[in-house]
Amino acid sequence: MGSETKHQTIGIVGAGLVGCLTALAFASKGYEVTLFELRPDPRTVDSSQRNLRSINLAVSNRGISALKYVDPAMADRILEHIIPMKGRMIHDITGKKQESQIYGLNGESINSIDRSFLNCCLLDELDKSKVRTLFEHKLVRLDNKSASKMTFFDHNNIVKTYSFDYVVGCDGAHSQFRYQLSKVMRMDYSQKYIDMQYIELYIPPSEDPENKFAIDANHLHIWPRHDFMLIALPNKDGSFTSTFFSPWSVIDGIESSDEFLKFFKDNFPDAYDLIGEFALAKAYDSNPRGSLMQVSCYPYSNGKGIILGDAAHSMVPFYGQGMNCGFEDVRVLMELIDANEGDIDKAFAEYSPKRKGDVDAICKLALDNYYEMSSKVVSTGYLIKKKVDYTLAKVFRNKWLPLYTMVSFRDDIPYSKAVQIEQNQNRLLSNMQLGLVGSAVLYGLVKFGQYWTRNTK
Amino acid sequence: MGSETKHQTIGIVGAGLVGCLTALAFASKGYEVTLFELRPDPRTVDSSQRNLRSINLAVSNRGISALKYVDPAMADRILEHIIPMKGRMIHDITGKKQESQIYGLNGESINSIDRSFLNCCLLDELDKSKVRTLFEHKLVRLDNKSASKMTFFDHNNIVKTYSFDYVVGCDGAHSQFRYQLSKVMRMDYSQKYIDMQYIELYIPPSEDPENKFAIDANHLHIWPRHDFMLIALPNKDGSFTSTFFSPWSVIDGIESSDEFLKFFKDNFPDAYDLIGEFALAKAYDSNPRGSLMQVSCYPYSNGKGIILGDAAHSMVPFYGQGMNCGFEDVRVLMELIDANEGDIDKAFAEYSPKRKGDVDAICKLALDNYYEMSSKVVSTGYLIKKKVDYTLAKVFRNKWLPLYTMVSFRDDIPYSKAVQIEQNQNRLLSNMQLGLVGSAVLYGLVKFGQYWTRNTK
Repeated sequence: MGSETKHQTIGIVGAGLVGCLTALAFASKGYEVTLFELRPDPRTVDSSQRNLRSINLAVSNRGISALKYVDPAMADRILEHIIPMKGRMIHDITGKKQESQIYGLNGESINSIDRSFLNCCLLDELDKSKVRTLFEHKLVRLDNKSASKMTFFDHNNIVKTYSFDYVVGCDGAHSQFRYQLSKVMRMDYSQKYIDMQYIELYIPPSEDPENKFAIDANHLHIWPRHDFMLIALPNKDGSFTSTFFSPWSVIDGIESSDEFLKFFKDNFPDAYDLIGEFALAKAYDSNPRGSLMQVSCYPYSNGKGIILGDAAHSMVPFYGQGMNCGFEDVRVLMELIDANEGDIDKAFAEYSPKRKGDVDAICKLALDNYYEMSSKVVSTGYLIKKKVDYTLAKVFRNKWLPLYTMVSFRDDIPYSKAVQIEQNQNRLLSNMQLGLVGSAVLYGLVKFGQYWTRNTK
Repeated sequence: MGSETKHQTIGIVGAGLVGCLTALAFASKGYEVTLFELRPDPRTVDSSQRNLRSINLAVSNRGISALKYVDPAMADRILEHIIPMKGRMIHDITGKKQESQIYGLNGESINSIDRSFLNCCLLDELDKSKVRTLFEHKLVRLDNKSASKMTFFDHNNIVKTYSFDYVVGCDGAHSQFRYQLSKVMRMDYSQKYIDMQYIELYIPPSEDPENKFAIDANHLHIWPRHDFMLIALPNKDGSFTSTFFSPWSVIDGIESSDEFLKFFKDNFPDAYDLIGEFALAKAYDSNPRGSLMQVSCYPYSNGKGIILGDAAHSMVPFYGQGMNCGFEDVRVLMELIDANEGDIDKAFAEYSPKRKGDVDAICKLALDNYYEMSSKVVSTGYLIKKKVDYTLAKVFRNKWLPLYTMVSFRDDIPYSKAVQIEQNQNRLLSNMQLGLVGSAVLYGLVKFGQYWTRNTK
């Protein structure tokens, strides 16, 4: 195999985060890679034109592990720019109290990084590689059952067709590649919107010369208000990218920027001051409302074409795993190519059944986590359970693992396995609780017995 | 409104059955209509190049009613070419016995017509109308939230953009229009393949000068074999279009045309002789295997764009309602435009909630009917139930309606209502049966009481 595979050509659609990493991964193995992107090169676009629906990223263990798999030196260059967040900072409704909830047992962090910035970093890495990148190329056709011929039209509306040995779609939740692929194979597919919108907001750097961060830099800030919530993630320049999530009915019920300001002041008084009245009113008037969609499909490949990242499994952002899972897709696929000694046919065939369970698991966790972030983080039961969980984890080091730790800090445990371990632990915990109740009842009976014996003698 | 609306422009994608009828319907109301089709004009294409995965059509009451709504004279012209099928003809495994099961209470029929032929009829009607039809135009973009600008590239790969007041997608199960629309609105969507393939076969006209039909012309022929089945629908020239349906495992388990011939001879001995050994072997070797997909989505419109027919609800073919439901979509939408005095905005807004329940109902019935066609038609329980059902229908005329009658012969009863009526009837029937059992038990008890009294006196 070895040298023969080096002549194989790979066409990749989508130069977002996952597409760039996929291109770098194939190129590092010696394949001839062409990467197509619908949009212009973001490095040439005025930053004020940027998409205001980015949702800040938290890169964690799985994402870092995939970056390192592809190129450890590149991973180091990128990871220079992250801001570690060691826990959640919960802001109460008075705007006066903040409480830190640490994520990891051993100081592990998830890491804030700007999506556009990371994308540009990866594009810079591509420039150093042998990958050919073609911007402003819109995929319009994927030909024949082998899915190896792709037709694009470019920014001059000129139609061009390219042939490849293998093609990969990394073009996001609304993937045109997936749509085209699904016409030449039997792919089950579903997309489902959840009743939730989001608006991106901005907390500027502080004016304090000692500390440019207006709130703690090393936390993911949450203002949980049950039905809706606000979050904020730090940026290198001291600013925070903040996102307001709510059901559509909440935002639709607010009919003017004045009403929005009042709503915001009532619910997030400290954030109101941090963002500023003027910026808030402007954001309400002009920032787009994002919607949240879940995508699920199966299988991911027809033998010659494959989809990775959001194209295969767009998830809601509440576990901070969307990009991490997409990067892990790349690592899993590359490891299958390694395991099959460069036989991509075999790797593509093995990928879908291997990956499906894990992808489904994290999509479900992401949805469930909205409830955790917006409500449970302030419930006493949750806090007790979390305390017990972390205490057991401290005592039974590596034998008892909180779910969040497994998902965010342990790429050696697949998502589906993490869910399974958590379920077993919960069962054990319930039994222990039952045991405790049982013991208490027994104790009561014994005490009553003693009392009875004493008093009837 | 009236005359103002006449200046509105409608762009329709897909010149299949539903697209043609939609174009005719809008044109007959005075709108300026342009119809785009990906493929070349089928009337200019050599018939030997035709798609061999057509599945013959049965046009029934709902389809006819929609044709008549658009243009009664046109409906008459088209209906000249149908062959009425008044029931199912069940072929047993010996190849020697056939049994007729009549569909209607009053001789109602469903009607066989060739899909390509019907499509050409509708295109001929379009030629007589003011509709502008553009073939070999591939939709590649649907612009802005109002979904009114559509970009195509034509057979010379020239890119052209057109603007309309309203746009309609009738481009089938793999609708590009739907894909584009779903990017500018929040549309839940799912496509699911069922484990079933089909191969089209052909029964030639008989050589008997007295009767060109080798088997009864006025039945839908079924060879039900539980896991798999064969069906055949008559054509005007005396031939039958026949389709073999089976799970993929059955066809994949057959490894050569010789094995296919043996399988066919064992299971469909009379059809084997009708089709002929040579043609069967050839069909096995070269006819494509079709797959069956269900499509479901919601809502169907974003206010300016709407999807109709298979683009909105591709269903399995086992109730013979795919096209009928698509045609009914057109009638329902047109009636909403009438009811709103030409206000298409309102009609589009009202369409989705009005139509969803009925579409879901028929999609489910279609899937359930595979079991009925392939297995239940030969079970004693089913035949008794059917007998009871039809007897009650005869006795309580218009008060008791078999489900098949409501679906296929009563366009005044929406699909969802038909399902509901059937459920009520079934409940009544169960109660009656319970009543009968109760009476029997009571009778037994009385008899035993008499016996007891007699013998203990």
